[in-house]
Amino acid sequence: MSNFESQGGVQAQTAKVPGAEWPETLISVQDLNQARQRISGACLRTPVLSVPNPSTGDALWVKAEALQRTGSFKLRGVANAIAALDSSESTKGVITYSAGNHGRALAFAARRAGIPATVVMPETASMLKVRQTKSEGATVLLLPPDEIVTHTEHLSAERGMTFIPPFDDAQVIAGQGTIGLELLEQVEGLDVVLVPVGGGGLAAGVATAIKKHRPSAKVIVVEPELAGDLAESFAVGRRVAWTREQTRRTIADGLRSPMVGDLPWEHIKFLVDDVVTVSDDSIVSAMRWLAEHAKIIVEPSGAVATAAVLQHSQKLPAGTTVTVATGGNIDLETFVSIVGT
Amino acid sequence: MSNFESQGGVQAQTAKVPGAEWPETLISVQDLNQARQRISGACLRTPVLSVPNPSTGDALWVKAEALQRTGSFKLRGVANAIAALDSSESTKGVITYSAGNHGRALAFAARRAGIPATVVMPETASMLKVRQTKSEGATVLLLPPDEIVTHTEHLSAERGMTFIPPFDDAQVIAGQGTIGLELLEQVEGLDVVLVPVGGGGLAAGVATAIKKHRPSAKVIVVEPELAGDLAESFAVGRRVAWTREQTRRTIADGLRSPMVGDLPWEHIKFLVDDVVTVSDDSIVSAMRWLAEHAKIIVEPSGAVATAAVLQHSQKLPAGTTVTVATGGNIDLETFVSIVGT
Repeated sequence: MSNFESQGGVQAQTAKVPGAEWPETLISVQDLNQARQRISGACLRTPVLSVPNPSTGDALWVKAEALQRTGSFKLRGVANAIAALDSSESTKGVITYSAGNHGRALAFAARRAGIPATVVMPETASMLKVRQTKSEGATVLLLPPDEIVTHTEHLSAERGMTFIPPFDDAQVIAGQGTIGLELLEQVEGLDVVLVPVGGGGLAAGVATAIKKHRPSAKVIVVEPELAGDLAESFAVGRRVAWTREQTRRTIADGLRSPMVGDLPWEHIKFLVDDVVTVSDDSIVSAMRWLAEHAKIIVEPSGAVATAAVLQHSQKLPAGTTVTVATGGNIDLETFVSIVGT
Repeated sequence: MSNFESQGGVQAQTAKVPGAEWPETLISVQDLNQARQRISGACLRTPVLSVPNPSTGDALWVKAEALQRTGSFKLRGVANAIAALDSSESTKGVITYSAGNHGRALAFAARRAGIPATVVMPETASMLKVRQTKSEGATVLLLPPDEIVTHTEHLSAERGMTFIPPFDDAQVIAGQGTIGLELLEQVEGLDVVLVPVGGGGLAAGVATAIKKHRPSAKVIVVEPELAGDLAESFAVGRRVAWTREQTRRTIADGLRSPMVGDLPWEHIKFLVDDVVTVSDDSIVSAMRWLAEHAKIIVEPSGAVATAAVLQHSQKLPAGTTVTVATGGNIDLETFVSIVGT
């Protein structure tokens, strides 16, 4: 489902142009700049690579966040949140729940900051992810999937560990938004930014950075058709949730969030120009495209923004376009089995 | 075959330490700095990625030149050579022979500079490489393999096109050497640099940059066992050639040169601390390692330096180590067939 021609709903209510009054709930330029300073030691300024746009042959730019430390953009958010802790909070440590990239990133950033980290993981998480998170030095607790949230809350309250949410948090959003700041420097004449959306932290942060500094550029978020809650939200004009049974159908396992978070939603509905959805087939094609032309290995979620160019090239706005390739945490065997068919 | 314990031969004759008088035939710091300025528009400053060292667990740094435009480091040399042409030479254009990365890079750099390029390719070249070179705008001539050199020389003489050699050229060496300049900025406390060697242009340039600016660092060149002409040269103390029948056995098709070039040899024998060889099995393991941990797709030649860490970890000097992952020009099907087994 695509929402390009939508005339109503969220889009008509909000201003994505200069001059509009920004809600006070949104993060500020200062938040973004502060995040950038804070994370400069822990995070890489990832390169922007060039691949041919499959339909126009022009350059399509890819922000290769799969090359970020810990293999995904998640590190930016947690590194910023951890750097914002006071000394008492640091002593007690941090906690989160995650089946994947967020937990691994938290473990890495915490160890680097010299503070203890606990990651509550579902028993269903892959052994690779569990091993990676442990190897970064975190305490890993394995629990039934429907208990991880409450157990995290319980431990956080009982032991005073600061909970670092995966996306619904101003510091996390500001950290992810540093990708937008880098893009503004790395890509001259930026016209269109395509960002995958799950919980919405990345989309919120990047949209803020872009719209504050280059309001003429379009920010379009991309989600799997099979987890298309945000596209439906834009279509009906209010935030809706999908069920876990629905969203877990997509191959893009990092984008199965049933609904974007509260604070991301405040940003997205005000700042994002459009939402498009892509098929799982397009996601796999984009994994191949990025391997062939950008020489990077991305996980399915990391290929979603590029999939929009493959699937919707004719409908996307013209101009200098960037896709954010958010992560590369996929084992080689799985990668080969996906792209090799 | 490894040469770590070698006491005689080339190593004993030459000085790889500060204070030695540099031969006048070698390129200078000025050549390197000029190259860097000249190529800054055409080439990317590629990132240095971190992977775990397989035996120590410490960080191993990888200069991801597979992410360079045209998919390999070759662009640096040709971009510098083309930028050094005068206007009369530019008008007549450039020519080279190549079955792969050098020709593609020449085509790209020439088009960017607005000058005509001709690439003489063997009829045995892969269709992919032919297509890529043509798509960069070059005139491609397909000839029997044993005629490409003489035909290139003939055309160059007859039409006044400047021949840009793949490695035996001061401008090309200086261009490739810019990788060394970048490494000095990108990796703090650099102790060991591992560089693959075929014709020797890259090794010569990188060794010059490193030894001029950080003489305490070791520069070790790596070649496939099955194309081990330089290791034999170091062992016997003079440059020797292998046959094409020998060198073509290795999977690393970019490193099948029977012998390093004259000018590269002048640099290598004076500057390079050691040469090690790696098995084809280690090369394949390194391709997997880089895909799993650095998230980059490299061709076999691009994995050779990293293969030395996998195969010879115990024998390599200690300290902060960088490998140069020189190229990623391999089609996805071939990549999958190599790493997927």
